[in-house]
Parts: sequence; C-alpha cells; structure tokens
Amino acid sequence: MSATTPTSAYAQLTWQAIVEAHARIAPRIHRTPVLTSASLDAMTGARLFFKCENLQKTGSFKIRGASNAILSLTDDQAAHGIVTQSSGNHGAAVACAARWRGVPAFIVMPKNAPTVKVRAIEAYGGKITFCEPKVSSRNEVCAQVQAETGAALVHPFDNDQIIVGQATATKELLEEVADLDAVFSPVSGGGLLSGTCLGARGLRPGVLVFGCEPERADDAYRSLSSGKLQSLESSDTIADGLRASLAPRTFAILRDNVERILLASEDEIISAMRTIWERMKIIIEPSSAVAIAPLLKPDAVRGLALPARADGTPAKLGIILSGGNVDLSSLPF
Amino acid sequence: MSATTPTSAYAQLTWQAIVEAHARIAPRIHRTPVLTSASLDAMTGARLFFKCENLQKTGSFKIRGASNAILSLTDDQAAHGIVTQSSGNHGAAVACAARWRGVPAFIVMPKNAPTVKVRAIEAYGGKITFCEPKVSSRNEVCAQVQAETGAALVHPFDNDQIIVGQATATKELLEEVADLDAVFSPVSGGGLLSGTCLGARGLRPGVLVFGCEPERADDAYRSLSSGKLQSLESSDTIADGLRASLAPRTFAILRDNVERILLASEDEIISAMRTIWERMKIIIEPSSAVAIAPLLKPDAVRGLALPARADGTPAKLGIILSGGNVDLSSLPF
Repeated sequence: MSATTPTSAYAQLTWQAIVEAHARIAPRIHRTPVLTSASLDAMTGARLFFKCENLQKTGSFKIRGASNAILSLTDDQAAHGIVTQSSGNHGAAVACAARWRGVPAFIVMPKNAPTVKVRAIEAYGGKITFCEPKVSSRNEVCAQVQAETGAALVHPFDNDQIIVGQATATKELLEEVADLDAVFSPVSGGGLLSGTCLGARGLRPGVLVFGCEPERADDAYRSLSSGKLQSLESSDTIADGLRASLAPRTFAILRDNVERILLASEDEIISAMRTIWERMKIIIEPSSAVAIAPLLKPDAVRGLALPARADGTPAKLGIILSGGNVDLSSLPF
Repeated sequence: MSATTPTSAYAQLTWQAIVEAHARIAPRIHRTPVLTSASLDAMTGARLFFKCENLQKTGSFKIRGASNAILSLTDDQAAHGIVTQSSGNHGAAVACAARWRGVPAFIVMPKNAPTVKVRAIEAYGGKITFCEPKVSSRNEVCAQVQAETGAALVHPFDNDQIIVGQATATKELLEEVADLDAVFSPVSGGGLLSGTCLGARGLRPGVLVFGCEPERADDAYRSLSSGKLQSLESSDTIADGLRASLAPRTFAILRDNVERILLASEDEIISAMRTIWERMKIIIEPSSAVAIAPLLKPDAVRGLALPARADGTPAKLGIILSGGNVDLSSLPF
C-alpha cells in the first residue's frame, strides 16, 4: 500500500485508538441510553435504535471528541489553554473539557449562532470571539486568537483525537445492539460520521453507514457523488450544527466507508424534529433530526435496498441523535 | 394485628406481588433509563437520579399498573372490555393494554383534558365518553358506561393490581441505584405514590418517601396533616394528571409510609418543567415537574433534614418523572 492510497490516509485511526479514547473519557461522560419507539418503528417499517447523545454531557456528542483531544494533550501543549472554532456544541464541549483540564478555552463562533449555545459556552467559562458566518472568517479569526494566546488548537473535526472520540458513540451503540444492519449519522465537517464509520467497522465490519445532510448544506453529498472534495462558503440551514464542510481527512474516510449521503429538506428536518419530540419525549435539535428525517419519507427504508436479514425480520437501524441544544423560546413549530 | 390496623388494610400488597407484576409486564414495557444531571446536582446540592417514566410506553408510568391489572384479569372478566376514568395518561395506558389483550377499552375523561391526551387514547383505539371535570360526574358517567357495556372496571388508583404495577418503577430505580436516601413521587389519587412506598420498602426499608403535590390540588397534604382523608371536588392546576383525590386504600398506605407531602405552586411547577427540558433535554409534563419543583426551592434539600450519609457524601435522591405527554402547541413558557 503506497502512502497515497485512501486507506493509508487514516491508518493511524485504529480500533485500538478508539478503545483507548473510550477508556480515557468514559469516567467523565454519560453512557447515553439507546431508546426505541414502537410508533417510529411502525412509521418506518424498521426497528430503530436511537443512540441519545442529546442526553450527553453538554447536550451533544461533541464532549466525546473534545474531552479525548484535550485530555490527550501534554501539559506543555495545554499550558496556554485551548482554542477552537465552533457553531456552538463543540465550543461548549471544549469549554467544559478545558475546565476539567484546568486551562482556559477560547471559542471562535459565528455571530449567528443560537443564543442558547452562546450562553452554554459562557456558563462553562469559555471566552468567546465572534466572527462572520463564513469559513474564511472563522479560520482567520481562529488563527488570530491562537497567535495572541498561544493556545492549542483543537479543531472541531480535522483532528484524529476528535474523530476517535466521536467513534465511541457508535462503539457503545453496537455494544448494546450488536446486529444492526445500518447506522445513520448527520454530517457536517465529518468528524462524527467518520467516527461512526470507524466505530462501526471495528465491531461489525459489514454494517452499512449512511450520512444524513441538509439539502441546504449538501457539500458531503456533492463530494461523495463527484469523488472530489466540495465545499460550502456558508449555509442558512436550520440545522445550525451542520453548516461546515468536510476536510480532506474526513473526506478520505467517508469516501471509503459511507454507503450513501441522504438529504433532508428544511421542512422535513422540522417535521422529523417534532415527531421525535412528540413520540419519544426527548428534545433533539434540528441537526439531530437530519439523521432521522430521510427515513420518514414514504418507502424510505425499502429505498435503501439493504440486504435482507437472515432471519427474515425487519431491518435493525441505528440512529445517532447528535444533540439537544435548542432555544425553547424560538421553536420552529 | 386486627383487621382494622392500618397495615392490615394492604397486607395483600406484598413484595412477592410486586415481583410477580414485574415479571408479567416486563416483556411489554420499557425498562426506562435512570438519568443524572451535573447541573441539577449543582442546583440542589444533592445527587439526583431521575427515573424517566416520561420515556415509558404510552408516555407515562401508567402502563405499568394498567397492563398489570388488565393482564391479570381472567378471560371471563375481560370478555366485555375494560372501562375506566382518567384525565388522560391512565386512559391511554388502558387503551394500549386492552389492545394487547384484544378487548375494547371505554375511557371516561373530563372534557377539559388536554387534546394531546384525547388523541393518544383515540390512537390506541379507546372509545371516549366525556364527563364534567368533577369527581362526582366522573364516577357517575363511569358507572353508566360500565352498566351499558358490561366492561370490567380498572380504576386508575383504587385497585391493588394497579398499585403493585406502579411499584415496579421504584423497584427498577432501586435495582439500579441501591443506596438512595429518599425517593420523590407526584401524588394525585395515590396509586404511584403508594407503589413508590411499597417498591422502596421492599428493597430498602429505611429509604424515606416524599410525595409532591400542587398547592392547587393539596388533598393529600391536608389528608396526611390532619390524619383524616380529605378530598377535592375539582382543581385547575396546570398539572393535569394530579387533579384527583386519594382513596381510602391509598390513604392507608401513604399514612404509614410517606415522610411528608411537599407542595409546589403553579409558577414553581412551570419553572421546574422548563429547567428539566433545558438541562436534561427530556420532555416532561407539568405533573412530572411537581416531583422536582420542591427540591429547586432555596435550601430545599437541607430543609428535608435527611439523616447524614455514613460516608459524608451528599444525599442521593430518586425522582420519579411520571410522564411526558405535553401539547407542544400550547407550552406554558
């Protein structure tokens, strides 16, 4: 295998690295429940297993990667604190994990981020710098804060320790429900979806992994369709956690491991969000709803053309519900 | 012990009866998760363990008692269906369990019950008859429907099989967190709180049990304070599941086993509900919020005067979150 084959691009992201990440973070995070719903099963014709990262510390899966990355730094590396860019949930996770580590957190976030996410970061003691809601502005301001503070950059997804941290959610899901046929995760920068692929492959090589993306932020769909990394300068999708674009690192993983990217319209996202609130009595944010919305379209599960199960029973599908940070004062329904 | 001592009034409600109920219903219901929240712990100065019956089938703990009662009937008893009176959640649970049993369900409910609860009963195939929102009207209409149909009455709380069914929630909670110092449940007719007492005593005799009640439906508070069964003709508390009054059967159990009834104002209920939604990302209805509201008052946990723990750590408190059936179109915040 040459240094340029796709696989070698992430050969360091081993199952062993995921197991070590899990051991590092498990004492500090929740082992979130896997919930089922007879009514959602009836709606989809499948058996759904929801990994509830909305019930995770800081209200999203992001604490998995952030705490793994921050606890992995040497004392020298962490000495001047942590800096990152985030639309909200990764920022809160970094602020929380930096506090565990006893160092400051500097968070660059777009000025259109939800107020509830700004407040959460402040509550964990994070120091916020606002930027324009564009990739170029985010990167610029982040580099500037890094230069001024000497803080260590913990990128939200373009970082190996982040990816193996996020993989632990799917590891837990498959430890609980071993014989899933497919797993569905939302995709933005691709850290969670990359982790989903690697976590799933480690325990069940044959499981299919689908990424779910808003139509209005469809760079991963376009990247995987064209085979070339595409990007998005900005997006106004209601799924505020999914406005970033893949990095070369995550693109390489997804290209090799993701079956297909499924898209959801804004209306489908809002409707799926409400369905989960009403039927499952849990609060999910729009970005989480993106992972279930494609399965609620008519005949969606049949359309996936999953291999039939040996026992003839309906497909068993895992859904990663990524987060639950919603402003209750401005619900979309 | 004579036939009139308090204990003999419920001597048949043994630990063995609870174990049998649990075996009967466990294959059909969810073993709901017990969730924790660092922020709620910080607010109260205690360690809280939330038994999430809002995530139970039909959206409340009521399916425990209803399914136990309905599955315990003989074929002859169940032949003409089941009749009950309910403000909503017990009605949905009876409709669901009657469907499992393959018999019709006749539900008498007050005409001011939340629309979302009416719809849920209809979705399970229950046949609804509306009554006035008063105890006298409920009883009258229920007797009338029973006479017309020949259906078996499964009263929402004045029924042994209901009480031992509800006890299984606390049994599961203590199986998961064995060393609780106290358990908190909402109280209306007293079925859940009676079950909480008996389920708790069975596994941990020394645990203290507190009932939580809306100020605007304070019959249990008045009954336990005065030592005489008090009742309530009607109530307009937002906690729509807590508008009923104790029966002699539940009063006898609570009088012997409940430490104290804690009250919550309407504002405290709404505020506690919002706090749980925001911090824990789960949907609870106002009646559930009643069980946590008294603990969010300043210095509330200290005010309980719980015995200190041998290891000097903060008190471990179990909270039964009873249900999550809320109309998302008319939230109180």
